[in-house]
Amino acid sequence: MENKQTTQANGVIEADAVIIGAGPVGLFQVFELGLLEIKAHVIDSLAVVGGQCVELYPDKPIYDIPAVPVCTGQELTDNLLKQIEPFEPTFHLGQEVTLVERRDDGRFDLETSTGTRFITKTIFIAAGVGSFQPRTLKVDGIEAFEGSQVFYRVKDPSQFHGKNLVICGGGDSALDWALNLVGKAESVVLLHRRDDFRAAPASVAKMKELCDNYEMQLTIGQVTGIETKDDILSEIKVTGADGVTRRMPLDNLLVFFGLSPKLGPIAEWGLEIERKQLKVMNTEKFETNVPGIFAVGDINTYPGKKKLILSGFHEAALAAFGAAPYIFPEKKIHMQYTTTSPKLHKILGVETPTFD
Amino acid sequence: MENKQTTQANGVIEADAVIIGAGPVGLFQVFELGLLEIKAHVIDSLAVVGGQCVELYPDKPIYDIPAVPVCTGQELTDNLLKQIEPFEPTFHLGQEVTLVERRDDGRFDLETSTGTRFITKTIFIAAGVGSFQPRTLKVDGIEAFEGSQVFYRVKDPSQFHGKNLVICGGGDSALDWALNLVGKAESVVLLHRRDDFRAAPASVAKMKELCDNYEMQLTIGQVTGIETKDDILSEIKVTGADGVTRRMPLDNLLVFFGLSPKLGPIAEWGLEIERKQLKVMNTEKFETNVPGIFAVGDINTYPGKKKLILSGFHEAALAAFGAAPYIFPEKKIHMQYTTTSPKLHKILGVETPTFD
Repeated sequence: MENKQTTQANGVIEADAVIIGAGPVGLFQVFELGLLEIKAHVIDSLAVVGGQCVELYPDKPIYDIPAVPVCTGQELTDNLLKQIEPFEPTFHLGQEVTLVERRDDGRFDLETSTGTRFITKTIFIAAGVGSFQPRTLKVDGIEAFEGSQVFYRVKDPSQFHGKNLVICGGGDSALDWALNLVGKAESVVLLHRRDDFRAAPASVAKMKELCDNYEMQLTIGQVTGIETKDDILSEIKVTGADGVTRRMPLDNLLVFFGLSPKLGPIAEWGLEIERKQLKVMNTEKFETNVPGIFAVGDINTYPGKKKLILSGFHEAALAAFGAAPYIFPEKKIHMQYTTTSPKLHKILGVETPTFD
Repeated sequence: MENKQTTQANGVIEADAVIIGAGPVGLFQVFELGLLEIKAHVIDSLAVVGGQCVELYPDKPIYDIPAVPVCTGQELTDNLLKQIEPFEPTFHLGQEVTLVERRDDGRFDLETSTGTRFITKTIFIAAGVGSFQPRTLKVDGIEAFEGSQVFYRVKDPSQFHGKNLVICGGGDSALDWALNLVGKAESVVLLHRRDDFRAAPASVAKMKELCDNYEMQLTIGQVTGIETKDDILSEIKVTGADGVTRRMPLDNLLVFFGLSPKLGPIAEWGLEIERKQLKVMNTEKFETNVPGIFAVGDINTYPGKKKLILSGFHEAALAAFGAAPYIFPEKKIHMQYTTTSPKLHKILGVETPTFD
């Protein structure tokens, strides 16, 4: 790689390209930049690479990746990771980009939720449907207790020891935390809208055994309201399948309704937005209205846009060529082919075939 | 497939979609049309599918197909063939499209060099660099003898029996025909510009053995002129590596310089052409200036165009959506995903997973 990657004394990373989103298109953006000798940093709000492919359908077959008759979201991700290996991208996972600001020198200040800071020449937003955030409970007034009594994530399980807990949800997160906190919490009630669980059957069986032994309790129903006392959430109202609403006292409410994507802070970076998508100025470079910021994959929109992974791959290729002048203003970029170019073979770390 | 494919009593095939070119992009066009329940005919001038990938680099690794870290041209073709299997395209190989004419009813008459005739609602030109034609010998006046004394293809070997032949070239075709015709022709001279052959080593060894036995002759040099007598090509002038030009009498000249792509008859169909490429009107549908005719892959041009296979895949997807209204004017086309759509699973002939 020709470009320099430096970290300043204050911990700020100076970069040529930062990719927001480690889904298939973000990963392939690494590849296309790599062919042009541009090294990339990749940020994702999830703790793993793969984006919605891995979050929403890791095991479901995908049939429309060209020349790949069938693969799962996880296999697609693994193949892309293998493909970009020669370019050694730096991943910054489990953090959301919170700030993007243009600097006087034309570069961008970029910061994440965990405090990683960059100064970068170009930004590629490959954020798909947005960053994945926990789905929240839709009950009037509940937001006021978020972080104090109501939680969508568990960071420190010990804070729930000795407490009266209600845990909402029927997936693995809800079951796992219920099983984990039984015996440590004062009481555990698992609350799910129906008696049918997406969680692993073994966890469900264990939970039912604990209920049979009165070590925890399962309630079928939904939270429909809250009661407060002295600014404290004291009770929730739970409406059962029978239509009857009952009161349930508690100290903490843990909600695990899965993740849902949100555009989030992207909406605040001065980019033109059309129906929750980033508008690109043309289909030549897939650049947004802010020069130096490109949008590729499901998050962008333009006339004829189809939300197909294969379209994101094409967009990533053209965006890389579009971005190169910001990184190498002096260099003329020639189109070269991986089949024939000894230079690209060197970049890819492969041998140039000697036959003709 | 909803659409009907009928063959008229006069042998004309009524089609919804004809794809010109069986390279990777033409093959993937079958897939994208298939997802929309449009059945396709595919025509190629070569006798095999795969286009330039297979013709120019069947064994060379390609590294930039997204999610395919490495594959040869042949493997890419095989994977695409497997992917389009559910859509049962009809291939018409070894024939070139010679005529495309718009009919009064808005459809197109389309004919090939072997006489296959179609009436089709839409045409997808995925002809890459054009149709592969034999490279010709560049010598003044030689064109006049093409087909009578000078040949770039052998259709009927028996016409050369008893003749004095000069065979030009150093690849497999030249060597194979030389070896084949020795003993049947009156004399065989193999003429090649250097003493180094691309042909299979075994063929080269056999040829040298025949030369040692005076059954044929090898000359190193190039054809630089011709002599005629009574409108007959009587001699060629051969300039050797020593710079000396000698005369060589002959009855027939067989030239095997490999294939090179030509735009060919496509130039005559009223399509807007820019630097030997077909201009598309926008990047929304990749439709040419003639409504109903689409251009995808290396043969098209638009602002930002890069001749990448992955771009052709994207273009094929959008062209399929752009073409659908010509084929199903009444039908609203909804975007569906192969991961989740039971309808697409039915079309693909796969089972819909039952987990959620």
